[in-house]
Amino acid sequence: MMRVTTERQAAFRDSLFGAGILVPSRVQGVYGQGPSFVRVFQGVDRFVTQAGSSDSPEVYRFPAVVSRDCVERTDYLRSFPSLIGSIHGFEGGAEEHAALLRGHLHGDELSTHFRPTDLVLLPAACYPIYPMVSGELPPGGRLFDVLGTCYRREPSDDPARMQAFHQHEFVHLGTPESALAFRDDWLDRAQQMMDELGLRVVADIASDPFFGRAGSMLAARQRERALKFELLATVSSDDEPTAIASCNCHLDHLTVPFEIASAGGAVAHSACVGFGIERIVLALFAEHGLSPDDWPHDVRRRLWS
Amino acid sequence: MMRVTTERQAAFRDSLFGAGILVPSRVQGVYGQGPSFVRVFQGVDRFVTQAGSSDSPEVYRFPAVVSRDCVERTDYLRSFPSLIGSIHGFEGGAEEHAALLRGHLHGDELSTHFRPTDLVLLPAACYPIYPMVSGELPPGGRLFDVLGTCYRREPSDDPARMQAFHQHEFVHLGTPESALAFRDDWLDRAQQMMDELGLRVVADIASDPFFGRAGSMLAARQRERALKFELLATVSSDDEPTAIASCNCHLDHLTVPFEIASAGGAVAHSACVGFGIERIVLALFAEHGLSPDDWPHDVRRRLWS
Repeated sequence: MMRVTTERQAAFRDSLFGAGILVPSRVQGVYGQGPSFVRVFQGVDRFVTQAGSSDSPEVYRFPAVVSRDCVERTDYLRSFPSLIGSIHGFEGGAEEHAALLRGHLHGDELSTHFRPTDLVLLPAACYPIYPMVSGELPPGGRLFDVLGTCYRREPSDDPARMQAFHQHEFVHLGTPESALAFRDDWLDRAQQMMDELGLRVVADIASDPFFGRAGSMLAARQRERALKFELLATVSSDDEPTAIASCNCHLDHLTVPFEIASAGGAVAHSACVGFGIERIVLALFAEHGLSPDDWPHDVRRRLWS
Repeated sequence: MMRVTTERQAAFRDSLFGAGILVPSRVQGVYGQGPSFVRVFQGVDRFVTQAGSSDSPEVYRFPAVVSRDCVERTDYLRSFPSLIGSIHGFEGGAEEHAALLRGHLHGDELSTHFRPTDLVLLPAACYPIYPMVSGELPPGGRLFDVLGTCYRREPSDDPARMQAFHQHEFVHLGTPESALAFRDDWLDRAQQMMDELGLRVVADIASDPFFGRAGSMLAARQRERALKFELLATVSSDDEPTAIASCNCHLDHLTVPFEIASAGGAVAHSACVGFGIERIVLALFAEHGLSPDDWPHDVRRRLWS
């Protein structure tokens, strides 16, 4: 799917560059985060952590890379092939290295010298959880807090569509009933949270950007069954609001491939709420202006008290 | 360079798995971090941040991916080809996707369908700074605080040699004199910090793991000029202590390729101190035991006060 960047999105991006909030790189959708962005990022991440802490989640962190096998066991390759970042490495010796450098000096394609490794970039924060919990869940299921450094290959001039970004997720694994209840509970809580940050959001049924023609049908089915809700905010364009959080029920889509059963051995379901930290930060700059010190008192208190 | 994992290193790793401190994955040197690890990680990272905050560094954060161009402008490809993680993407349409999935179902090599992108995994936290500061520095130079999600392709059973890890660096760009003074100042400060955490470290002249025969000469030259110092601690083996921090003077090695001049236009030099956060966490578990609640009062106070 080609996405068109609007002039307003590019203008917002340029204003962030001008204020030193984001730093451009030579690659679309890959930015440095300046001191002001970092300060807001840390505040938002702490705010999200606190919002989930009353449920005492198990706090795990996973690297920006994940085993290729983990991603292949889901339908990611079928559903989102164009978003994957596949990691390749150089395995040659002195001779191949010399050829590599000669190729470099002559402007040849360096990367033909590289071979696929057993790693890909992490596409979503929760993926590494599923192989970890393979087996039977305890009564009541399990609840996780994960913050992931995620990657999706979607070069764009819309600052809200970064190739590299952070998802902070709470993930529940349990019964079909508990998974659905978790999703619905967080749909309310996440709206309340965004309201506390002074962000006007709308909740809407959504679908993932499945690849190709078969993908359109998958997306339609996902919408029909109302499995995914997104909280949409205006970042730089009213016409195309940005999803800053999402509440998802995965049914048994991830529990079956990883052989996860609920207590007693029946089928398990999973659900998650995901907060797009960079997108929430951008929504705050868009809503409250480029100077965090001038933001409403209540918002500042919630981020930095 | 092949590194041999000792039995004691593998035994320490297995004790971390057993205690739920690290979580194994299907890939060597790629781990999940359990609740106890995360808690210590956050404490160490805060401790490092505080140690540098009196100098009021500019705080920047960069993604786990960096433009291929940035890494090619340094000598990284010449010096460390085998450590690079090159990112490849799928750019085909419906037909190529069908072929990709058929290949998958028949166990063919998936990744031949992927083409190199303009990104590689970030090899060191400070790399994205240099293109950003291209031009003339202000009087006194500049000082940065960066925390990077780094990658080096070195599969190992030694838990201290992770493929994916975090570096927290302070980076100074200025004159040859100020760069050297910065490096020497931090060599003292970093030793003091590790002492405060109850870690027994030894400072030693070191070299980077340059590739191949020409690399051996580069390494010897780096040692001769005493450009790199490492703080070595015992993590799982007395015979092979682990570098948990390093203090480096880069001379003009990074300022020349990115056309960075000191105030007035003369040549600039750069220097950095880098803390390997995961390695410091592991050194703490090795030194004080697997139960952080039982660690010495002073250490706990410094991490979590």
